[in-house]
Amino acid sequence: MWVVWVHGSLYGGSLGFGVVLACRKGGERPGVPRALFLPSFLPFALPQPFRLPSLAPWLCPAALCWLLGAVTPTHSLQVSPLPGAACKTPMEGEPTLRLRIFDLNCWAIRYLSKRRQERVRLIGDTLRQEGFDLVLLQEVWSEQDYSDLKVKLAGCYPFSHYFRSGVIGSGLCVFSRFPILDTLLYQYSLNGYPYMLQHGDWFGGKSVGLVIMKISGIIFNVYITHLHAEYCRDKDAYLPHRLVQAWELAQFIRHTSKAADLVLLGGDLNMHPEDVGIRLLRGWTGLRDAFAEATHFEGCKNGCTLVPNNCFTDKSELLPFPLGIRIDYILYKAISSFTVKCEELKTTTGPAPGMDIPFSDHEAVMATLHIQRQGQPAGATLGTADLALADVVTEARTEVGVGLRAAQRQRYSSGRMAVLALLLLLLQAVAALGTLAGLGTEQPFPKLSFCLLAFLALGVLVLATGLHLFHTMEVKMLHGTEDQMWMALRALQERPSEG
Amino acid sequence: MWVVWVHGSLYGGSLGFGVVLACRKGGERPGVPRALFLPSFLPFALPQPFRLPSLAPWLCPAALCWLLGAVTPTHSLQVSPLPGAACKTPMEGEPTLRLRIFDLNCWAIRYLSKRRQERVRLIGDTLRQEGFDLVLLQEVWSEQDYSDLKVKLAGCYPFSHYFRSGVIGSGLCVFSRFPILDTLLYQYSLNGYPYMLQHGDWFGGKSVGLVIMKISGIIFNVYITHLHAEYCRDKDAYLPHRLVQAWELAQFIRHTSKAADLVLLGGDLNMHPEDVGIRLLRGWTGLRDAFAEATHFEGCKNGCTLVPNNCFTDKSELLPFPLGIRIDYILYKAISSFTVKCEELKTTTGPAPGMDIPFSDHEAVMATLHIQRQGQPAGATLGTADLALADVVTEARTEVGVGLRAAQRQRYSSGRMAVLALLLLLLQAVAALGTLAGLGTEQPFPKLSFCLLAFLALGVLVLATGLHLFHTMEVKMLHGTEDQMWMALRALQERPSEG
Repeated sequence: MWVVWVHGSLYGGSLGFGVVLACRKGGERPGVPRALFLPSFLPFALPQPFRLPSLAPWLCPAALCWLLGAVTPTHSLQVSPLPGAACKTPMEGEPTLRLRIFDLNCWAIRYLSKRRQERVRLIGDTLRQEGFDLVLLQEVWSEQDYSDLKVKLAGCYPFSHYFRSGVIGSGLCVFSRFPILDTLLYQYSLNGYPYMLQHGDWFGGKSVGLVIMKISGIIFNVYITHLHAEYCRDKDAYLPHRLVQAWELAQFIRHTSKAADLVLLGGDLNMHPEDVGIRLLRGWTGLRDAFAEATHFEGCKNGCTLVPNNCFTDKSELLPFPLGIRIDYILYKAISSFTVKCEELKTTTGPAPGMDIPFSDHEAVMATLHIQRQGQPAGATLGTADLALADVVTEARTEVGVGLRAAQRQRYSSGRMAVLALLLLLLQAVAALGTLAGLGTEQPFPKLSFCLLAFLALGVLVLATGLHLFHTMEVKMLHGTEDQMWMALRALQERPSEG
Repeated sequence: MWVVWVHGSLYGGSLGFGVVLACRKGGERPGVPRALFLPSFLPFALPQPFRLPSLAPWLCPAALCWLLGAVTPTHSLQVSPLPGAACKTPMEGEPTLRLRIFDLNCWAIRYLSKRRQERVRLIGDTLRQEGFDLVLLQEVWSEQDYSDLKVKLAGCYPFSHYFRSGVIGSGLCVFSRFPILDTLLYQYSLNGYPYMLQHGDWFGGKSVGLVIMKISGIIFNVYITHLHAEYCRDKDAYLPHRLVQAWELAQFIRHTSKAADLVLLGGDLNMHPEDVGIRLLRGWTGLRDAFAEATHFEGCKNGCTLVPNNCFTDKSELLPFPLGIRIDYILYKAISSFTVKCEELKTTTGPAPGMDIPFSDHEAVMATLHIQRQGQPAGATLGTADLALADVVTEARTEVGVGLRAAQRQRYSSGRMAVLALLLLLLQAVAALGTLAGLGTEQPFPKLSFCLLAFLALGVLVLATGLHLFHTMEVKMLHGTEDQMWMALRALQERPSEG
């Protein structure tokens, strides 16, 4: 909470002086001074001292970002070089490896998510007790939450990484029992619109994070991501952006995983299992869905991860899906001479054990993978399904094309608006100069409305220019993706003739 | 050139009507109508009809982008599936391969670069005559120039790719005699500031493009890039951004080249050979500098590519470097069981043969590489130079840290400015409400200045908020890079103890 106190006093009836004291209760955020003194000369009259309790700083996007954790301590996330007491040991040196993975969208938005701190503590406690091998978390927007988890989990998961991106962050972090050798972040080129403040995805800088690990001599490329949310399934304005993200994700995985023995992807993909984006991702990378492949499953029906039973979900949004929807995934494939099987897949089902609340508005996905150093890679079925894949790529390309045309229209409208505003401003300038030069003897317009109009035109010019630039970038990226998909289609079509 | 005609007429003294006709001479840009009619009701009086020849559209960034080629035809860059008559054939099937590479920063900025069209034609003619195997071009900002080159070079270089990015584009394109199998674009997370309009790098969406090719069974990962320019060497405000780009470039190459036999990088790196960024890039990727390795060299002294003799270079900028500077590079390494040698390196030296002008303000770099399928990879000297590399990473990390602190200061200042503007607005709102509610009987301030102040505050709020968001992203990315470099340092320090 912020408390703001403003005191003003008159100087000659036209100047005021204000001192603002902003301070936060509690010391939750190191690195930010607990009190900020912002003295300022305010060049107008203050009829009386004001008191403005609770200044509602979320009205201002800058303050919003600040609150959501944009201001964070400078130092963090130093991975401890030596592991502490690991909770469990995999069968090192043996020909098989059993890997337990935990994936959860934590819904930890500072000041907005319900019972956030309690839930983050709960998640930390459970992770410590359960002792997974690898933990993939999304929507950990506050670096403070990450740091708290890091401290709590230092014994059990000595290695971790937090991916920074965008204004608020990527929200992505990884905890691991095994050393992290290297990381790489790829920020999606499209991610919604900055002016859609109510959705806010743009500010999150959605990305895919890559973490490289070596477990028992096996090289793992672990990818974690969170794609753009779907706010209205019937008329999904963000579908082209999500498809570009799915494509970039698939391309990034393909191009960076060539030296890996095993590829894992976990995250909130914001796509239903049969959506074109996930078919594209699965088809283009050869990744397999742990839910579909699991020998044993336990959890919400159909593996749903956003269910009406969860006390934090928006029931009205899930009305068309009485069982819920499955949008959180663990996907995997073996690349070199390894086989990987999903022995068991579980989801949480509402409240955490012994608690009255669940971990998040999403259910967690937990997979147990069984990896063996023998046989041919099981994921190499790409060639046989080329025709089906070409259909998927064509479908995705069509949707990207629809988005491209919409973006072109928006770019044109905003460009026209900017030009009109510029013309209006120029006309006003000419009119004002004409009046000053004494061309018109009387003034044909009231000064106040003339000034207001000029400011309006300036505002429209700045806004429309910004929009034009943004939509120009959008067009470029959609166009580039369309081209890449075309190239992929050509490669798919040429493949049989080559073989 | 644009011609804009505005005609206004009075309606009751407070409404005007304007019709704008904008048209371009020549039909150089398909996809854009040659005439745009923009009717608009302008809600203020027009004392007389105006004539505004040459509206100076470069005043408005949107128009700038438009002119620079942001509005481009929707269809382009379809790679022809079958090559035409290739100019020369490499020794296919034989154990050695000779590859001729051409790299040039074309300086083809629409309406700003001198004699652009003439030079692009000249570049096209020369490339067709010379018949290189691979051509890497930067600063081809206009897609129309790319399309023209593509048409002209279709016979000799049947495969090509243009990388789209940012507002204006990435300016990067590749022409090849051999099929392009796949492409990937990585946009650098930091690239200057949008408000530095006079530099304009931000609008270019600087990136690294990856093109994958298979030549005589050898897999080539070809990277092309153009890093942020250096405008003032003594006080280089963009050094941290360029270092982040160099780091991301190195990381991208490392992570995407693991299945390649050969890695090539060409481009304008905007760094002198001994700058920390290029040492970091070379050290972290193991890439070797074609100029340093070449058996035979011919061209400008010290391999300089920005020389005072060139009629398009800014002589005053090169005063401290009478011979010029070397900022354009071809780098390479072999990854698997291949060896690669640079037989010959050439640069152009001013005017093109038989012409009075050079290709560009940069000199072109031309390398002949000799690739053999035998022996151990020659680039695998990374382990022996770990200590020196650690020093380079430390040096780069220090510079990134300096940039981080500057960005944090700017974020703080812009955030404070936004908060102050918001307070001013709120105070004004309260004062206005107080006056309306009749609390103060007389009005203590003139209406006009009150309104002007409100607009000023609103403008400052919007601007400062935008800056705050931008610098927050900057801080995140600099911070993330600092972390990654720290991780790299740790890996370097631990390596000897592991071996």
